Amino acid sequence: MALKYYHAEPLANSLKSMIPLKEKGLAYESIYVDLHKFEQHSDWFVAINPEGQVPVLDHDGTIITHTTVINEYLEDAFPDALPLRPRDPVGAARMRYWNKFVDEHVMNHVSMHGWHRLVGVIARNIDEGTFEELLSHIPLPDQRKKWSTARSGFSEADLQNASDKIDYALAKIEKQLGETAWLAGNDYTLADINFYSHCGMMVERMFPEKDVAANYPRLVEWRERVTTRPAVAEALKAEDRTAPGLRTWSGDR
Amino acid sequence: MALKYYHAEPLANSLKSMIPLKEKGLAYESIYVDLHKFEQHSDWFVAINPEGQVPVLDHDGTIITHTTVINEYLEDAFPDALPLRPRDPVGAARMRYWNKFVDEHVMNHVSMHGWHRLVGVIARNIDEGTFEELLSHIPLPDQRKKWSTARSGFSEADLQNASDKIDYALAKIEKQLGETAWLAGNDYTLADINFYSHCGMMVERMFPEKDVAANYPRLVEWRERVTTRPAVAEALKAEDRTAPGLRTWSGDR
Repeated sequence: MALKYYHAEPLANSLKSMIPLKEKGLAYESIYVDLHKFEQHSDWFVAINPEGQVPVLDHDGTIITHTTVINEYLEDAFPDALPLRPRDPVGAARMRYWNKFVDEHVMNHVSMHGWHRLVGVIARNIDEGTFEELLSHIPLPDQRKKWSTARSGFSEADLQNASDKIDYALAKIEKQLGETAWLAGNDYTLADINFYSHCGMMVERMFPEKDVAANYPRLVEWRERVTTRPAVAEALKAEDRTAPGLRTWSGDR
Repeated sequence: MALKYYHAEPLANSLKSMIPLKEKGLAYESIYVDLHKFEQHSDWFVAINPEGQVPVLDHDGTIITHTTVINEYLEDAFPDALPLRPRDPVGAARMRYWNKFVDEHVMNHVSMHGWHRLVGVIARNIDEGTFEELLSHIPLPDQRKKWSTARSGFSEADLQNASDKIDYALAKIEKQLGETAWLAGNDYTLADINFYSHCGMMVERMFPEKDVAANYPRLVEWRERVTTRPAVAEALKAEDRTAPGLRTWSGDR
């Protein structure tokens, strides 16, 4: 049995499937894909994932992509490892409800602000010919559009809409954490890992104006519970090649 | 064991979880929710699903919402019934990859065109005071916004973008059906039911300009295979109270 995990910095999608690997104690070969050098669009990587996106799980040569899919796959393929999906059908449904909420109503909105502050700076520092060449290597039309928009700048209306959606999510999560210890019930699940990786871990740092500590105290307490888990702490130590001044998600800014 | 299924017309989300119930031969009480009378926003229904959306599955009093979640729940809760999710981990991952694609890159785009042609007509026929009153009963902010936009009209740019995304999906599906008999491999799964319910069953009728028969022959052949399944044929016979002239998804227009 051999697992390889192709990933970038330990945050967002790359962190989201790294945490379950660590939680389950699964040995894997870590392969860093340098997004700063656009390796995710390079021939060698597109041969592995034709969509040109990280992360990717390679299990004995079988390629699994998309973090929510990878994480359920790890549950199915390694049933004897620590479960992160409840084994009762209702618990699994609660987990999937939250995974869907994060995937469809949180991830892209935090991502837009991150791209605005990080990828936009990078994209505007590339000369036009090189940028066109770069775009031509991006397999997914949506990703080509996102790169173009990052270079020209996301509109204020879109950034405000994304911020409003994050407010909605924070209030929804805060309410849930008043009812259950973790998002999907009394157990720590893939839903917690999902929200943590895409929003919970960085929301306070990215959006100081939301005054998260005062407005969402249960979320802050929950975040500390996630951060201090040994597997999460271990994952967060993974390589980060982002220039410190551009670390909009992971720290200094 | 008692199952209740709250649903509207047999298409899109309401069809998507009705087909698995029929395929699995699970007895259930069918409860029709009349969207034309905005019953989904009424007090009695919001008490069942605070998000004010159909369909809803009630299993012995436990409420499950969101069709992709409901459909996986039926797999987990009734493991002895006909499986619609592959039992091998890789097959399940393939199915979830396609479910995610349909949920995130197909459903909303077909839906926008349907809303434009159906809900827009309905919304514009409501006087302003009544419309404001209607909006005030919609629990989800996204749905309130969608109703407002349906009344004022979706922009040409948004409708074109949605149409482009459907073109992308059709080409992707056609390619896949050249490699495997069904979307996720050699078995009919929840992924086929998902794409069928949200797009495959109505794409030719809704978008005659795409010349689906000529451009996507494998998709047409696949659609016939789905349509003629006894469980699907049975589901399609469910009640349809939409005025015939407004049946943009399900038929006459």
